[in-house]
Amino acid sequence: MNTHIKAAHYRGDKTFTVEPIVAVAPGAGEVAVRIAFCGICGTDMHVYHGNMDARVGFERIIGHEMSGSVEAVGDGVTNVSPGQKVVVRPLDHCGDCPACNAGHIHICHNLKFLGLDTNGAMQEVWNVPAHTLHVLPDDIRMDHAALIEPVAVACHDVRLSGLTQGEDVLVIGGGPIGILCAMVARDAGGNVVISEVNTHRLAIAEAMGFDTINPAETDLPTAINARTGDKGADVVFEVSGTQPGVDAMTACAATRARIVMVAIHAQKPQIDLFQFFWRELKLIGARVYEPEDYEKAIKLVISGAIDSERVITDVSPLDDIQKAFESLDKSPTAMKSLIQVGEDA
Amino acid sequence: MNTHIKAAHYRGDKTFTVEPIVAVAPGAGEVAVRIAFCGICGTDMHVYHGNMDARVGFERIIGHEMSGSVEAVGDGVTNVSPGQKVVVRPLDHCGDCPACNAGHIHICHNLKFLGLDTNGAMQEVWNVPAHTLHVLPDDIRMDHAALIEPVAVACHDVRLSGLTQGEDVLVIGGGPIGILCAMVARDAGGNVVISEVNTHRLAIAEAMGFDTINPAETDLPTAINARTGDKGADVVFEVSGTQPGVDAMTACAATRARIVMVAIHAQKPQIDLFQFFWRELKLIGARVYEPEDYEKAIKLVISGAIDSERVITDVSPLDDIQKAFESLDKSPTAMKSLIQVGEDA
Repeated sequence: MNTHIKAAHYRGDKTFTVEPIVAVAPGAGEVAVRIAFCGICGTDMHVYHGNMDARVGFERIIGHEMSGSVEAVGDGVTNVSPGQKVVVRPLDHCGDCPACNAGHIHICHNLKFLGLDTNGAMQEVWNVPAHTLHVLPDDIRMDHAALIEPVAVACHDVRLSGLTQGEDVLVIGGGPIGILCAMVARDAGGNVVISEVNTHRLAIAEAMGFDTINPAETDLPTAINARTGDKGADVVFEVSGTQPGVDAMTACAATRARIVMVAIHAQKPQIDLFQFFWRELKLIGARVYEPEDYEKAIKLVISGAIDSERVITDVSPLDDIQKAFESLDKSPTAMKSLIQVGEDA
Repeated sequence: MNTHIKAAHYRGDKTFTVEPIVAVAPGAGEVAVRIAFCGICGTDMHVYHGNMDARVGFERIIGHEMSGSVEAVGDGVTNVSPGQKVVVRPLDHCGDCPACNAGHIHICHNLKFLGLDTNGAMQEVWNVPAHTLHVLPDDIRMDHAALIEPVAVACHDVRLSGLTQGEDVLVIGGGPIGILCAMVARDAGGNVVISEVNTHRLAIAEAMGFDTINPAETDLPTAINARTGDKGADVVFEVSGTQPGVDAMTACAATRARIVMVAIHAQKPQIDLFQFFWRELKLIGARVYEPEDYEKAIKLVISGAIDSERVITDVSPLDDIQKAFESLDKSPTAMKSLIQVGEDA
C-alpha cells in the first residue's frame, strides 16, 4: 500500500497547487527528510514570476531553505540516523569538471541545485543525497533553523571578504540577504552601515540595531567618508543588483577595499574600472556556500547573532502557499516568509 | 659659477625643447642622479598628445623609466653613495592619509608621481628624494636597467595575481606592459598566451617565444577553452583598455580565476558581473609598484627573464627627443623606445 504525502507543485503563471503524491522510499545513498519549515527565497519568487519556467517546468516542487528531521535512510547511508534534526545544503556536484577537479564543488560546472533542478522541500518528505545533510543540535528551534541556508550564503560572502575585527563595512541593499550579510559582518566585528532606499526596510534595519543611510536623501560616498575619516569602507557587499549600487560600490570603497558581488546582475552594468586601478580595489564574486559556511551559519542561528525573530516576518501552512507567495510579492515590509510544511518537530 | 645641464621640456602641442638649465645641488634628503637612459612610457605619450596638460603644464621635464648613477648626495643621505648605479622608484607619498596610514604608501591619496607632478629624468642630472632609490649591481647594462620601472609594474601585477607554477595565463593586449606581464608570468611558471589584434605585435610576441591568439580571427574563449580542457584561464591580465578586452576577461576566466586590471579605463565599460557571481571570479586592481616589486624587477632584468634586447626597439640621444616621440607615435612595430640622456656609465 502506498503512503501519500502532501506536496506543492509550481504550475506556471504564478500558481501553485497542493495535492497528495505517493511517497517514494529513499534510494541508495539517499535520506528521506521530514520537512518542518521551508523559507521562500528570492529565487523562488523568480520561479513564481515565471522567469525560470525553462529551467523548472510545470511539475516542480520547489523550496530549499528548510529544516527537518531524518525520517529514513537508504542503503549505505552512515552519516545520519532517523530522528536527527537536519538541514540540507542543496547542492549536488558532478565530481568530474574543471571546478570539481580544482576542489570548488560548490560551483561545479554541472551543478544541480536541489529544489530548482530537482524537486525540493515544499513537500512533507524530501529525499536528498546523504552528503548534502548537516546535523543540528536537538534543542534548536526548527523555524529558526529554516534560516540556516540563507545565513550560510551570508557566511560565505563574509568569509570570502576576509573581513577582520574593526573594519568599516557597507552593505548596499537591505533585503533579506543584505540584512543577513550585515548580521554576519557585525558578528565578525565589522562596523556595519546599510544603504537602502525602501523606507520600510530602513525601519526594519534600524530596529535590528543597524546604522542606515538612504542614498535617495543623503549622498552616500559623502556619508561613508564622514563615518570613516575620509578612508571609505574596507568591505562592501553589493546586494542591490542595481546600477546605482554598482556606482556606489566603487565610490565608497577605501584603498585596497574588498567588494563582494552578492547580487545577481542579469544585465551588464557599467563599472568604474578606473577606481579599481586607482585604489587597488578587489571585486570578489561569491556564490552559494561551502560546508564550513553551513557549520558557521548553524552556530550563528543558535547564538542569536542572527535576529531570527525579526528576520522571520510570517509563517503560513503549506496549504496556503499560494497566498504566501501572493502576499510576499506585494508586501513592502516582509523580510523572510516561512511555510510550515510539517509539525514543528 | 653655475653648472649647466641639458634638459628636455614639454612645451605643449606635441613639442619638446632641449636646452641647458642651471644645475641645482641636491637638498637635504635628496640625491642628484646622473641619468644614463630614460624610456618613453605610455603616460609620456599621453603627455605628448596634450591629454595631461592640466597636470603637467608647459615647463615640465618628464621621464621616469630611467637608469643612472649617484652624482652627489644632500645632507643626511646615508642609503647611497656617489658612483653607485641606481634606479628611481618615482613615487613620493604624503605619509598622513588613510592609504599611508594603512601601509599602502604606493597608492597614497596625495601621491606625487616624479616626472609628472615634479620634474623627471629627461635631463642630465635629476634630484630625487633618497628614499626613492634602489641600488643596482655594478655590472648591469644601463640600457637594460631603464626597463626596471616598467618591469616592476609587471612584477606588481603578477604578484597581486597570486600566480603559481603551472597555471594557465591569458594576457589581453600585447603592448609593452602586456609583453612584460607575459615575461614575468612565464618566469613565475605560468603557461602564457597573449591575445592581440595588431599583427606586428603578434609577430614580436611570437619572436619572444609566446603563444598568441588574434581574437579578430579566432574566437578567444573557444581557443582558451581548447588550450585548457574547458577550464579557462586561471589568471587574466587585462592590459588592452578596451570593451572587447573587458568582455574577454570574464568569458575566458576559469572558476575562481583572478583577473588583474592593469589597463587604465578612462570610460566605464560594461562588465559581465553575472560571471563574477557564477564562477566566483576575482577582479584585482593593480597600480604602480612597491619596493619588493622593484627588487624582483632588478633580478629579472639581470637574469634575462626579461628579453631586454627584443623589448628595446630603438635608442635616440636626448637631442632627438622630439623625433623619438614622433616616430614612436607612428610606429606599428616599436615596443620600448629609450632616450640616451648621458654616457652609458
